[in-house]
Amino acid sequence: MAEQRVSCGRGFFCVPDLAAALKNATNGGFDFICVPICHPRYRREFLDPVPNRSGAFTRSDLVLPSQDWNSLIVGKISPWLDLDSTNEIVKKNSELALHQELCYSVHLSLPAVLVPLKSYNCVNLAQHINTSIHDTHVQQVWAHVPMRSPEDECDRHLFEEEEEIKRSKYEKDPWEWWNLFRTVCANSRKIGLALEISTELPSEEELVRWCGEPVKAAILPTSLFLTNKKGFPVLPRAHQALVKRLFRLNTQLILTGVNKHKDKGVGFYYQYLAHLYQTQPELDNVSQFAKGYEDYLQCPLQPLMDNLESQTYEIFERDPVKYSQYQKAVHKALVDRVPEDKKDSVVTVVMVVGAGRGPLVRASLTAAEESGRKVRVYAVEKNPNAVVTLETLKEEEWSGDVTVVSSDMREWNSPEKADILVSELLGSFGDNELSPECLDGAQRFLKDDGISIPCEYTSFLAPVSAAKLHYEVSQSSDTGKGPLAPFETPYVVRLHNVAVISPPQPCFVFVHPNRADRIDNSRVKSLEFEAKTSFSLHGFAGYFETVLYKDVTLSIRPETHSEGMFSWFPFYFPIKEPQYVTAGSTITCHFWRKCTPKKVWYEWCMSKPAPVPLHNPGGRSYLIGL
Amino acid sequence: MAEQRVSCGRGFFCVPDLAAALKNATNGGFDFICVPICHPRYRREFLDPVPNRSGAFTRSDLVLPSQDWNSLIVGKISPWLDLDSTNEIVKKNSELALHQELCYSVHLSLPAVLVPLKSYNCVNLAQHINTSIHDTHVQQVWAHVPMRSPEDECDRHLFEEEEEIKRSKYEKDPWEWWNLFRTVCANSRKIGLALEISTELPSEEELVRWCGEPVKAAILPTSLFLTNKKGFPVLPRAHQALVKRLFRLNTQLILTGVNKHKDKGVGFYYQYLAHLYQTQPELDNVSQFAKGYEDYLQCPLQPLMDNLESQTYEIFERDPVKYSQYQKAVHKALVDRVPEDKKDSVVTVVMVVGAGRGPLVRASLTAAEESGRKVRVYAVEKNPNAVVTLETLKEEEWSGDVTVVSSDMREWNSPEKADILVSELLGSFGDNELSPECLDGAQRFLKDDGISIPCEYTSFLAPVSAAKLHYEVSQSSDTGKGPLAPFETPYVVRLHNVAVISPPQPCFVFVHPNRADRIDNSRVKSLEFEAKTSFSLHGFAGYFETVLYKDVTLSIRPETHSEGMFSWFPFYFPIKEPQYVTAGSTITCHFWRKCTPKKVWYEWCMSKPAPVPLHNPGGRSYLIGL
Repeated sequence: MAEQRVSCGRGFFCVPDLAAALKNATNGGFDFICVPICHPRYRREFLDPVPNRSGAFTRSDLVLPSQDWNSLIVGKISPWLDLDSTNEIVKKNSELALHQELCYSVHLSLPAVLVPLKSYNCVNLAQHINTSIHDTHVQQVWAHVPMRSPEDECDRHLFEEEEEIKRSKYEKDPWEWWNLFRTVCANSRKIGLALEISTELPSEEELVRWCGEPVKAAILPTSLFLTNKKGFPVLPRAHQALVKRLFRLNTQLILTGVNKHKDKGVGFYYQYLAHLYQTQPELDNVSQFAKGYEDYLQCPLQPLMDNLESQTYEIFERDPVKYSQYQKAVHKALVDRVPEDKKDSVVTVVMVVGAGRGPLVRASLTAAEESGRKVRVYAVEKNPNAVVTLETLKEEEWSGDVTVVSSDMREWNSPEKADILVSELLGSFGDNELSPECLDGAQRFLKDDGISIPCEYTSFLAPVSAAKLHYEVSQSSDTGKGPLAPFETPYVVRLHNVAVISPPQPCFVFVHPNRADRIDNSRVKSLEFEAKTSFSLHGFAGYFETVLYKDVTLSIRPETHSEGMFSWFPFYFPIKEPQYVTAGSTITCHFWRKCTPKKVWYEWCMSKPAPVPLHNPGGRSYLIGL
Repeated sequence: MAEQRVSCGRGFFCVPDLAAALKNATNGGFDFICVPICHPRYRREFLDPVPNRSGAFTRSDLVLPSQDWNSLIVGKISPWLDLDSTNEIVKKNSELALHQELCYSVHLSLPAVLVPLKSYNCVNLAQHINTSIHDTHVQQVWAHVPMRSPEDECDRHLFEEEEEIKRSKYEKDPWEWWNLFRTVCANSRKIGLALEISTELPSEEELVRWCGEPVKAAILPTSLFLTNKKGFPVLPRAHQALVKRLFRLNTQLILTGVNKHKDKGVGFYYQYLAHLYQTQPELDNVSQFAKGYEDYLQCPLQPLMDNLESQTYEIFERDPVKYSQYQKAVHKALVDRVPEDKKDSVVTVVMVVGAGRGPLVRASLTAAEESGRKVRVYAVEKNPNAVVTLETLKEEEWSGDVTVVSSDMREWNSPEKADILVSELLGSFGDNELSPECLDGAQRFLKDDGISIPCEYTSFLAPVSAAKLHYEVSQSSDTGKGPLAPFETPYVVRLHNVAVISPPQPCFVFVHPNRADRIDNSRVKSLEFEAKTSFSLHGFAGYFETVLYKDVTLSIRPETHSEGMFSWFPFYFPIKEPQYVTAGSTITCHFWRKCTPKKVWYEWCMSKPAPVPLHNPGGRSYLIGL
């Protein structure tokens, strides 16, 4: 594995000698430089009368070898361009100059071009950038956006009418500029964000929102830096934390502004940032496990319709938390069920339904041993391939009374009834692997006072902004299904470059055993969330919590996540069209769990802030087969 | 053509004897009746404990022959159903009862089922209706919606907090209920609107909005009726006007409530409504011409790339207004150009570019004759098939100096220069048939002081709510183009069941001749509209106005429409996803006219109230070939 190091560039406003500037920056440790594509003094006029001006509009491509151009130089669009000017001449001139600069950057194969957004008034700029993205080989366009509005500092109350402030407030929020720009460009993956970090950081909600965006680069002006006791440049604590957060998104850095520590050399800024990178806390267990799977969309398992593969079992058996929790739960249940004075006479019947390759059998046997209770274990498994493993383990590893049963738990005729039914049938959204239906089928052979482990589970939902995931969904297609199908399917995904806008709320609850006369596993739930900032809604994150037994639980809900447990990534329910939500709005979503004797599926829609059509009606795009 | 008559049904709350009720209603003249599907006293409970109840849940299908069931009976869902109750038992029971009633209505092949919407809280109802629409053969579901909220009358200010009123106001607007309901059901065309007319009519903006919806039926309670001098039931004047407006949408009527004129019999209500229908004003010229084309999407002509057909020429030549305006314009230009005292010596050169089958040649010759001016006419036409007609007319009909030129005007080498250039190259959106490019090419042979007829044209845009058009667009598909293409194409369409939300505003302007050194026919325009009511935005209507010469104009903008002129239906620019717009919002749209030497196309997007991606970037879905 290659050594990980920070990628940090140096931004220049004006570069008289490109080769010298590059040399200077790389000597200081920097990885690349950002320079104007055109000479600032060569302000071009394309309109009549065309000035009679000779000479090149910028430096020649010969000043650097092409491998330097295409790896070390990020181009900057001229700052005077104003494609959204109300002055027709300025607008037209800017359009032509932009075209010239983008074409030249393509000629040089620059890896990225920085385009500043200065206000909400940027639609014509977006249209022209979008055209270039489609018509030329421009590689990446990074919208240079300030984290907070330059106007945010001054006290506008003194100057403006209350109403005017309210009306136009959102137009002064740079996130709105960015959101407009990238939406007009249809969220093209060629559009990235170069976020200029502000001196005063915005609210945590706003930081979360930024961290859900494709932040390709963070621009750090030298003015952000303080001087430490030894005279070296350092960032304030809050900025350090933010930069570390951005490192997790593989954001590159760009240092701009004059060196405030002349005696030290600009390289010390670089060294400080490299130091920040190296001193990041190590990844936790889950993040380690999830490495490489960030924001990668997977289709949920269908363990009832498909048989799991050996490799899948192997990965999940490695979870260091899940089975020890199961063991604790079985232990407590055994102790509750058999008092100390009867432990030698009473044999507890434990049935593991969906035993797989045996981890729950092992956990049950260990719990029995540790608690000193006698058990008779049945390991029921429908996958004949896993039964091979179970039989082998029974022969070679497990001591004690274990019976391996090769059968679907819903069909098995048990020779006796169970005291404890142990299962691990939960998916990322709790019931989505049909645990309710399976356990309802298995509880025939649970004693009337028997215990189900788990005894309860709850799914959770939270609204998310996840432009990247939404883009990925839009690019996927399942041949044979319509263009809508990818948006009507939930995904299992390690949520990473995603902003969770409001805390998760409980959705569907299931309790086992279910003693209702008529069991009904269909559900409908409406949830309301508040948006503190405006944002672009791309769907809902799904999680679950389960009570195995009494206080022994498992959870993948972020607020209560079982530490170190990696068996489940969250769910992502997309919505077809991103919904722009204004600050202070209520988001109301509606989720259904629908059932027929042959299949189960979810449907979802929204009623606020705007109605959104039902997704997946009748299970047309996604269903779980029974 | 079949005789047109009103279709009016009679609505009942309770029907002890169906055959008798039907006979009574048809005797009174009514065309159908609306009756509860189930007996109101048979309130069913499906949940545990299931009541031990015997007997059928409603009347037998044998009480009527099936052709009566499937043509004369509209079913009504039980009024007690509440699928969105917070009480789980009520909700579940309602779901099962709805299912039973819809299944029975399918069994009877009822042509439509009335489902009342009682509040914004109707998402679960919508989900279940949507399921039935897909899973059963239910024919039409009519959402029964009051025109105004029942609560609208009382003075809530006395009881509620100001803030609460504001927040929940929109939830009390029945249009919002309807919009939520049909949006959740993805605007299925099986969902219609049965609009219950209120005693007090809402504002004109709200009426316009309702008239943009698929109003299948208008429900008229007898309480709306007044008694005229002779003791007969009549509607107030405003209600008469509304009913006549709805007749234009082929809305059926349903009379509900007790007969307030017992001595007269309920048949007199019917006779009054039939009378209203018969006394509608006759259709104007344009509506006559447009009969059958209402809301029918047509692709815009491409007269440069394709040659028009004989039939197309014939239809447009019949326009009673267009050519008389052209004749007036040429007349005025001739008189301005040649003073009375020189009329016998000076010959004015008139070139008709794009002469087609000669209507403008004829108009020019007539103008010359009437004004007493001498002319030499050139008829330039690129379509060789039309040239056959021109040559024949020259031989057989036209006296005077006419030269027929078989050439594209952009390539013709004229033997002399023109005093007046006459053309009819405008499309529904003004420049969309490339009049600017053609006339720029033709003005080479216009004298420096020559006149172009038309000399100026302006396109106009207005936001529209047009669920039906949007649905039609979503159902169309052009093989070979992606699923997005139909939404990125403008259409020519007689706008009918469409609400224009805000008056049209000018978009692109072109002036001829164009004496700029460098002609630039690309354009960009941003327009802002105010929404007085909330509505569902489905795109933009396009119109044009043109100045032929001085005060002689043509217009298809509704406010200034040339009376009786039928040559152009409006344009419709769709947007991919309907945008829900709240009352008081600003709608900002952006339109581009983009040009290359080979093609012209439009792009469009929105920045307010929410960003909407660029449509048709690079002309990928729609372009006009040069």
